Amino acid sequence: MSATVAENLAAIVLAAGQGTRMKSDIHKVLHPIAGRPMLHHLLATVGALAPMRTIVVVGAGREQIEASLDGSGAAFAVQSEQLGTGHAVRQAESALSDFDGDVLILYGDVPLVGEATMRGMIDRLNADDRPVAVVLAFRPDNAAAYGRIVTEGDGTIAKMVEYKDATPEERAIDLCNSGLMAVRARDLFDLLGRIGNDNAAGEYYLPDIVMLALAEGRRSAVVEADPWEVAGVNSRAELAAVEGEWQRRRRASAMAEGTTLIAPETVWFAHDTVLGRDIVIEPNVFFGPGVTVADRVVVRGFSHIEGATIGAGAEVGPYARLRPGAVLGEKSKIGNFVEMKKAVLGPGAKANHLTYLGDADVGAGANIGAGTITCNYDGYFKYRTEIGEGAFIGSNSALVAPVRIGAGAIVGAGSVITRDVEADALAVARAQQEAKPGRAKRFREVMSAKKNK
Amino acid sequence: MSATVAENLAAIVLAAGQGTRMKSDIHKVLHPIAGRPMLHHLLATVGALAPMRTIVVVGAGREQIEASLDGSGAAFAVQSEQLGTGHAVRQAESALSDFDGDVLILYGDVPLVGEATMRGMIDRLNADDRPVAVVLAFRPDNAAAYGRIVTEGDGTIAKMVEYKDATPEERAIDLCNSGLMAVRARDLFDLLGRIGNDNAAGEYYLPDIVMLALAEGRRSAVVEADPWEVAGVNSRAELAAVEGEWQRRRRASAMAEGTTLIAPETVWFAHDTVLGRDIVIEPNVFFGPGVTVADRVVVRGFSHIEGATIGAGAEVGPYARLRPGAVLGEKSKIGNFVEMKKAVLGPGAKANHLTYLGDADVGAGANIGAGTITCNYDGYFKYRTEIGEGAFIGSNSALVAPVRIGAGAIVGAGSVITRDVEADALAVARAQQEAKPGRAKRFREVMSAKKNK
Amino acid sequence: MSATVAENLAAIVLAAGQGTRMKSDIHKVLHPIAGRPMLHHLLATVGALAPMRTIVVVGAGREQIEASLDGSGAAFAVQSEQLGTGHAVRQAESALSDFDGDVLILYGDVPLVGEATMRGMIDRLNADDRPVAVVLAFRPDNAAAYGRIVTEGDGTIAKMVEYKDATPEERAIDLCNSGLMAVRARDLFDLLGRIGNDNAAGEYYLPDIVMLALAEGRRSAVVEADPWEVAGVNSRAELAAVEGEWQRRRRASAMAEGTTLIAPETVWFAHDTVLGRDIVIEPNVFFGPGVTVADRVVVRGFSHIEGATIGAGAEVGPYARLRPGAVLGEKSKIGNFVEMKKAVLGPGAKANHLTYLGDADVGAGANIGAGTITCNYDGYFKYRTEIGEGAFIGSNSALVAPVRIGAGAIVGAGSVITRDVEADALAVARAQQEAKPGRAKRFREVMSAKKNK
Repeated sequence: MSATVAENLAAIVLAAGQGTRMKSDIHKVLHPIAGRPMLHHLLATVGALAPMRTIVVVGAGREQIEASLDGSGAAFAVQSEQLGTGHAVRQAESALSDFDGDVLILYGDVPLVGEATMRGMIDRLNADDRPVAVVLAFRPDNAAAYGRIVTEGDGTIAKMVEYKDATPEERAIDLCNSGLMAVRARDLFDLLGRIGNDNAAGEYYLPDIVMLALAEGRRSAVVEADPWEVAGVNSRAELAAVEGEWQRRRRASAMAEGTTLIAPETVWFAHDTVLGRDIVIEPNVFFGPGVTVADRVVVRGFSHIEGATIGAGAEVGPYARLRPGAVLGEKSKIGNFVEMKKAVLGPGAKANHLTYLGDADVGAGANIGAGTITCNYDGYFKYRTEIGEGAFIGSNSALVAPVRIGAGAIVGAGSVITRDVEADALAVARAQQEAKPGRAKRFREVMSAKKNK
Repeated sequence: MSATVAENLAAIVLAAGQGTRMKSDIHKVLHPIAGRPMLHHLLATVGALAPMRTIVVVGAGREQIEASLDGSGAAFAVQSEQLGTGHAVRQAESALSDFDGDVLILYGDVPLVGEATMRGMIDRLNADDRPVAVVLAFRPDNAAAYGRIVTEGDGTIAKMVEYKDATPEERAIDLCNSGLMAVRARDLFDLLGRIGNDNAAGEYYLPDIVMLALAEGRRSAVVEADPWEVAGVNSRAELAAVEGEWQRRRRASAMAEGTTLIAPETVWFAHDTVLGRDIVIEPNVFFGPGVTVADRVVVRGFSHIEGATIGAGAEVGPYARLRPGAVLGEKSKIGNFVEMKKAVLGPGAKANHLTYLGDADVGAGANIGAGTITCNYDGYFKYRTEIGEGAFIGSNSALVAPVRIGAGAIVGAGSVITRDVEADALAVARAQQEAKPGRAKRFREVMSAKKNK
Repeated sequence: MSATVAENLAAIVLAAGQGTRMKSDIHKVLHPIAGRPMLHHLLATVGALAPMRTIVVVGAGREQIEASLDGSGAAFAVQSEQLGTGHAVRQAESALSDFDGDVLILYGDVPLVGEATMRGMIDRLNADDRPVAVVLAFRPDNAAAYGRIVTEGDGTIAKMVEYKDATPEERAIDLCNSGLMAVRARDLFDLLGRIGNDNAAGEYYLPDIVMLALAEGRRSAVVEADPWEVAGVNSRAELAAVEGEWQRRRRASAMAEGTTLIAPETVWFAHDTVLGRDIVIEPNVFFGPGVTVADRVVVRGFSHIEGATIGAGAEVGPYARLRPGAVLGEKSKIGNFVEMKKAVLGPGAKANHLTYLGDADVGAGANIGAGTITCNYDGYFKYRTEIGEGAFIGSNSALVAPVRIGAGAIVGAGSVITRDVEADALAVARAQQEAKPGRAKRFREVMSAKKNK
């Protein structure tokens, strides 16, 4: 089935809406869910169907969308005026003038429609009874003001009606129109060319093609989706609600796969988080994009992890901040108030406290003392620090990159290391300790007097 | 309307209750919600009506309340014995002996009544039918043991009845008495002087004035409030519930105004948090009082922010701890494990890692390296550190205040700076690095032997 | 009553189930709730009844369970094949061959049955009507596929029926079988020896003993429990659900006892957390096992606390990480990004910022400056740091243990202290500050040129 879909499928994604309720300078469909813009979620799912062509209908803020999809292969059609969904879809006509297959009509602000649902719509369109259109329907807990779908005994559509025009009987129906459709290209543009805009808003409504076809004796069908799949995002509150539902599902799948979440509601995953088995995650952990966690890892609370690869049996946190390029070897350990960025920690190596490891390579079994800082930046360039296997970096040391600490070397606590240290050597850069007996007492006497003046 | 209210309005706030269920040495009405004592929430709302006089009726723990309201202009009346709400209100009589306007009766442990609701009560009291009293009613999800209000067809009160005395029919009514009232001063004290205490507890009940007036042919009216506005706090669980509801509403308004909350339920605002537009707040951020956040700021997770002003486009966190007096310039950056207190960070300046900036002024574009500490305290006094524009403080440096780093100066990593550094100079305070070849290896041999003994 | 229980009671705990849905190499009953393995929760409750003997029936993964209960006094019986609950209980027969009292049958994956409920079952077993068995029943919100219990007018059991075998009328009953039972030892093994396995799975079902006894004219009784007490854990999602319910109850009891939880749902307690009165806990605090918090302590947000004792009036956090052996004196203070481990902080002492105190004793009133590190580890052994009363450790200092700082001594900022400092002395280990005028400017010119090349 996948193959046949690819050859005969195009997708039109409507993304011209202003999204004024977002109160944002960022285009609505570019607001992220689980660390990825809504529109990209949708296009990734569409991409799994391998359509011949994907046309994104853009309007205000089109530059943002086009920039965001640069290199994605998506084509763009511009809707200059906001004259309704029917009008929006029609803008894609010229881009599909040579196309004779099925068209999926999607919305950039309805980002979480699943691949199976999309496939189901296309399958239904190609079923033996050949409906002219397939409408994606859903049954919300509270049907509220959604347009209703009246069906015949055979499940085909008898009527689609806006809530405001619906009779009390029609309002009692809980089958609602999501707006998503599958239609053959030829039918789609033929029907769209003939619907009117004789309504209060003077807009062309996409669902009218179903009623127009029906008037001509051609039936349409419905496919049902879970309400959450067709949840639209028009405000930041709805964005948060969709994010919340996405997270709930991801947490459930993480637990089902064998990860312990002590407090599931306090762990946030990104769209691409990869988890192994027998992982334990304490409360309050945030995963940004690009994280892979191997088996038997323990992630303690208050950790913030992005772009990191964590090896089997490693321990992370609490308060670990792993930034992109952090790679933790097997059974390595990153403790509290430690930041890693573009840094590799070898197997069994440890950095347990108050440390910054940036642009660094740490060998297996090395021990990085509390308060160690890799000084990787001079205001212009970044430089690497290399720490050999089994090296021991004393606490409160500064390693001024570029610098190499050889295997098995020891750096004395409180040292500022500016030159390479050879393997097995001890390096110290430390001032003499001087004591001034009684001086603290005198200081206190003077200061107390001053304070009490 | 505001003007007329001011001239004719007094407020009586009952705050004499013991609050034993709080199990606290702190007076119940001084427990905070959204970073402000309950009583202060209420008085701030009352203050917006600009009453002629506000009398707080106090009893046990009055010293705490009086100290907390020092300078607020509130007057106090003392209820020495706990003889019921009617008795409590009557203690304010002498403080209002020369007052002939409307009186709002409020409760210190019912802190979130809105200004519109208070105005609605006064408006209703002054409506054409001139009710003798206006009772604030509500319809809770679960009416439980609240007193019920029976109304006439015209909406006036036919009966107010304690739950325990109510008939089954009366218990089926969901209109409940919040206890809040508006009454003209003259009527209030006249009626209070005539109600009895012929009940099991031997107490004088405020609602009895409504029944007494009714027996004399004078009607009272109800005004309805949302149940959450009249939620009372008698235990820490109720305190948490009211805090939770306050936070839910504030989060919703933040999102409506154009702030993205990835996980709204994990962001805590204070009563006075000011937010711009197109702000993004990651999960787990706590705002204490006194925070202003400008447009396009990104606040990353696990940040704890009090008394801070954050300029447009700034980036904060994760794990930023901003304390009172932290001022972040436009597009400045405070990164992980960084604490700021009474410190100003100029536009575009950065302190990205493991730093303490206390009592400091940092110029525009300056870069504060990882692990930098401003040593601002000698055990007796605090001193300031000044860092000029474009200065670069190498990692792991200690700046011993009072000290000035000139514009464009560079401080070498690991330095302890005790004297001023002039503009464009390089300052280093660093010991010679010495290497002892093979010494680490020998150390390991000795220690391993010791360990294995 | 306790005494009679002890002398006549044995407990059989079934823990042979594979728990494959956990997807874990750790045995199901050893997954923790509130920081303690499920099985240990259950055995702690059983222990309060002081039974003569406790037999844990183990199967796959028995080594893990036996190791975890080493020294607990529990005996083990092995169920080699999984032939049903009746078969499992029977494996304990030989361990109880000399026992003639009451037997409680419990499940390692039903960890939160309360002591009162267990006592209630035994009391009912010994009531005047002497039922042959007592079945612990519950009424879940959604009875789903649980086995149903049909009762007679006198409350004894008329029938126990698996959901799949139940009639519609029986399915409408909401009284469900938890599986837990109390039976006299003699009856238990007699009946178990006579039940069959004539069912689809070919298993011996424990509830069949009730039906067998009934067929012989002997009645059994039910005792009801709250559904949450008999919640079973078969997956990580159920583990999280039971953890969540445990936490909700603990938070409620904390608030009832006089602790303010600003956001209760974000505070996690351990099974043994001890709290005083008038404590305030900000959002996002995690308590691991072994913590005692005295009166009037304030725990600020994002704190992670295990194995610590916090004295009255102390302030902790935000971002305090207290590890086992941390002891905070009265009115002491641990601030942000500070870690303590096996360290004692005297009354009124402070470590407010970016500090690691490991294996240290800090005297009363001492002040530990920002960025102080106790260097307690040389890769082989740990050493202690002693800091006297009223000492002042300047910021960014490294204290290389073993080392003593005398009472009232001052350590200059940025010092590496390797030798003891006597009382009232000032110790400094600090390099000379050198300035190179104009050098920073030249550096910028060179680097800018390089960068723009």
